[in-house]
Amino acid sequence: MQLCNDERLDYIAGSHLKIIQSPSVFSFSIDAVLLARFAYVPIQKGHLLDLCTGNGVIPFILATRSKARITGVEIQERLYEMAKRSNALNSLDHHISFLHADINHLPSTLKRNFYDTVTCNPPYFETITENERNRNPHLAIARHEIHCTLEDVIRVSSQCVKSKGKVALVHRPERLTDMIVLMRKYRIEPKRVQFVHPKEGKDANMVLLEGIKDGRSGMICLNPITVYSTTGTYTEAFKQVYEGERMEDLNHESL
Amino acid sequence: MQLCNDERLDYIAGSHLKIIQSPSVFSFSIDAVLLARFAYVPIQKGHLLDLCTGNGVIPFILATRSKARITGVEIQERLYEMAKRSNALNSLDHHISFLHADINHLPSTLKRNFYDTVTCNPPYFETITENERNRNPHLAIARHEIHCTLEDVIRVSSQCVKSKGKVALVHRPERLTDMIVLMRKYRIEPKRVQFVHPKEGKDANMVLLEGIKDGRSGMICLNPITVYSTTGTYTEAFKQVYEGERMEDLNHESL
Repeated sequence: MQLCNDERLDYIAGSHLKIIQSPSVFSFSIDAVLLARFAYVPIQKGHLLDLCTGNGVIPFILATRSKARITGVEIQERLYEMAKRSNALNSLDHHISFLHADINHLPSTLKRNFYDTVTCNPPYFETITENERNRNPHLAIARHEIHCTLEDVIRVSSQCVKSKGKVALVHRPERLTDMIVLMRKYRIEPKRVQFVHPKEGKDANMVLLEGIKDGRSGMICLNPITVYSTTGTYTEAFKQVYEGERMEDLNHESL
Repeated sequence: MQLCNDERLDYIAGSHLKIIQSPSVFSFSIDAVLLARFAYVPIQKGHLLDLCTGNGVIPFILATRSKARITGVEIQERLYEMAKRSNALNSLDHHISFLHADINHLPSTLKRNFYDTVTCNPPYFETITENERNRNPHLAIARHEIHCTLEDVIRVSSQCVKSKGKVALVHRPERLTDMIVLMRKYRIEPKRVQFVHPKEGKDANMVLLEGIKDGRSGMICLNPITVYSTTGTYTEAFKQVYEGERMEDLNHESL
């Protein structure tokens, strides 16, 4: 296995899995890890789909939680190649497949109305300056709604997930209204929400939201996650979630 | 001043105000107090409206926070009379008016597109059995969507509030999706949300949500409120909010 340019090999917290990262192309953030630990997944069998998968961090974590077949879709060839190499490195080719595709033009071989769970950590920012776009196109595509909007993500998630299947997203709280309105528009009924606060007493800076396709209305709001203690270290509660020690709690029976 | 039947006189926490309550007709709960402390209000002047005001607890608390003129609307004559007597008892007739009316048939004297802030702690439950309805009609009307639905509350709030004015509601988290979707439908853009958890680690059992008529999209999620400590007493943080000691924090500049 070969690392290119400024790539490095990191471990995924709470696992023995390795992942190829590159500061100039893509490195995962805690958002993706929390989503991969938040989403409901069937344990023994089924099919999971991760859109905007980047270097594949979400599929790798899902593989520690579920025996279901997992597919990760990434539009950037460079990131798709990184994810494939990490997959080989972890000997997970039998469990995870990566697909190089634009979610707005998915190949017909990818089944519709099929997946038990669809996850996505989409680009967060609606607008971009020419300067940002030119400075680093890889990071620009991962962070900004250049190739797909939040509406694209939710529409495509709804097309791919089966009826009564789950769609789980992570985003900034400022987009919560859009997430909820768009989910309902595309038949994904929001069911579980959890906010992540950087410190106690601070406004949330992330929101995890899961809906069920064709589900009944009725939301629950889980206890929030606080990342840093007053001394600037990770809180014990955060570490437990981040490293997957509270999977049983998170993976409780869905509504 | 005369108390009728099983009425009693209570103090409103953190104030010198008295309020007439009756366990068989209406007693306010912490939901109403938290809403009255959560809502943005102009300090020096303006006009505030509280729908489904019950025995008037929200107007009384708002009067401790703002010099604006306050109107409370209540459909049940018995509760309206209680609110009027409490108003006289507190010598607040110059500051607060109560109106006996159905929010779905408001008199034309109540101005539209006029109020700076509209608050409402609406009936929470969508359905009711004949048995519940007959056992205690007063409590049934206050708790169940008999005379007004959540959509009525949000539609009427939007009619009454001025452009760029605030609408603040308290409800159960299970209705959050409906609240957000209906707010956007009636031009109230959700801006500030705060969840209330009964204990640390438990799912939220209340949600406070404020929107701005014709506001720009973008939500913030405040740090949550936890009511009870592990020993079963109120937390210090809750007491501060409940008794209004953190009004400056809550009343920060709106978005």
